[in-house]
Amino acid sequence: MDKENYDLAVIGCGPAGLSAAVNARVRKKSVILLGGELCTPKLQKSPLVSNYLGLPEIRGSELREKFLEHARLLDIPIQQVKVESVSPGNGGVFSVQAGKKAYQAGAVIIATGVTVNELFKGEREFTGKGISYCATCDGPLFKDKDVAVFAGASGAVEEANYLAAFCRKVYFIAGAGQRSDVDGLKPGIEVIHDQVLAVKGNDFLSLIQLEGRELPVQGFFIYRDTYLPDRLLEGLVLEDNHIRVDHDYKTNIPGVYAAGDCTGKPYQLAKAAGEGQVAALNAVQYLDRPG
Amino acid sequence: MDKENYDLAVIGCGPAGLSAAVNARVRKKSVILLGGELCTPKLQKSPLVSNYLGLPEIRGSELREKFLEHARLLDIPIQQVKVESVSPGNGGVFSVQAGKKAYQAGAVIIATGVTVNELFKGEREFTGKGISYCATCDGPLFKDKDVAVFAGASGAVEEANYLAAFCRKVYFIAGAGQRSDVDGLKPGIEVIHDQVLAVKGNDFLSLIQLEGRELPVQGFFIYRDTYLPDRLLEGLVLEDNHIRVDHDYKTNIPGVYAAGDCTGKPYQLAKAAGEGQVAALNAVQYLDRPG
Repeated sequence: MDKENYDLAVIGCGPAGLSAAVNARVRKKSVILLGGELCTPKLQKSPLVSNYLGLPEIRGSELREKFLEHARLLDIPIQQVKVESVSPGNGGVFSVQAGKKAYQAGAVIIATGVTVNELFKGEREFTGKGISYCATCDGPLFKDKDVAVFAGASGAVEEANYLAAFCRKVYFIAGAGQRSDVDGLKPGIEVIHDQVLAVKGNDFLSLIQLEGRELPVQGFFIYRDTYLPDRLLEGLVLEDNHIRVDHDYKTNIPGVYAAGDCTGKPYQLAKAAGEGQVAALNAVQYLDRPG
Repeated sequence: MDKENYDLAVIGCGPAGLSAAVNARVRKKSVILLGGELCTPKLQKSPLVSNYLGLPEIRGSELREKFLEHARLLDIPIQQVKVESVSPGNGGVFSVQAGKKAYQAGAVIIATGVTVNELFKGEREFTGKGISYCATCDGPLFKDKDVAVFAGASGAVEEANYLAAFCRKVYFIAGAGQRSDVDGLKPGIEVIHDQVLAVKGNDFLSLIQLEGRELPVQGFFIYRDTYLPDRLLEGLVLEDNHIRVDHDYKTNIPGVYAAGDCTGKPYQLAKAAGEGQVAALNAVQYLDRPG
């Protein structure tokens, strides 16, 4: 497996992540920025931003371009990959897994955006009890069982096909109304266009409640562009479904900082950029600590 | 006395104050911005700013102009006056005194910048015990006594002349090396170009320690462009010489918020703009509270 070493790994390339990366770079740290497929899609879709000081009345797509350009000017590498996990390693070095690569970094800033609005009712309760975010990891536990895949991000088709090889039945929930790519799905996988309302069960997941019907399943594999921070990094403490940070944007894990929407409301650009800055400056101090 | 009414009064027109004003205005609140003589002089002097996301490698003076332009575009009135005091009035309305005017506002955001670096050694200890910030208010207490004036802001000449009418001796400390306007000072006032190292006394001020000499005085009137937040608003709680705020940038006084350098380090633009935004959105919520 490829390995790359950096002072700082920033996860998420919205305004918080970009501001963090820019500030750490200005302080002469090497930085890798690991983002989703499209950096900050929410901003891209915003027709007009009026309240980011200094850039009045600007289209979201234009502002996004200015943000990304700032990072490019400072030669900050941006990898558009989904980060799977962060784990503390030896000697205080973190290992950030994304695709086939592991990035090593002395400090990590999590800036993965809003997550909580996306959770299905019951999702947290059944996580690890029928709900999984990785078919490759957990799929074999569901051999000869009925499972569903929620296709909120690319890669879901491959995961469904993988599951179809050994599960009894695979449902592919492509969402209601929203276009979702089903090209390449194996025959036998049932495509459903519907909204997920809740997941239910007793000790273990047994049912997905859709708007139009119910799916009796034992496994549910969820793919989204957004993150569940405490799935990303084991032991990360949340508060009201956001990452708990202190005044310095430190999380409960030394060397790990968080900034932007993932730390809480209001979900706003300037707040995110400001928090990214503070997190970065404190991460730089952490990296420069004596000893 | 003239009175003007606004939803929100913002004190300080640096990045925190401007961001706060812009965000409240976008939320349809009426806003008055009360700043010093030059809005955000620190930014004006900064040769190059590299870390304000979206506006890379920009001269401070240019960035300042963009910030002010944003406020102008939204028709936010900016008064370049020194705010003397904020006091809670009847019905939850605050009265903000500045020069000959009183501005009424339903909520207040304090964004007065860094203050703590400017304090003289012993200053806080002897405040109200020989140290004053207003000759017009406290001058008569020093009739026939020896006093000094620290000229760190304009207006000091007038204050010294006022004191000279009834004090026995008036020293005018114009600072070491720094140019300070002494035009118009009454004869008999002794101009001193020196640095203040400390103020001393027992229960009451008795001595100003300069680098080159000692001044035995009973009164010391200090004029600066910066603010002591707890002198601005009685009862405001500080922490480590900064205004104590919670996660919503609320101070200990309901309806009063703070943002930017006055809340603590790091003293940075994006942090200040972000905090101004959060403070403003919470002030708007406060203004819209039921009842």
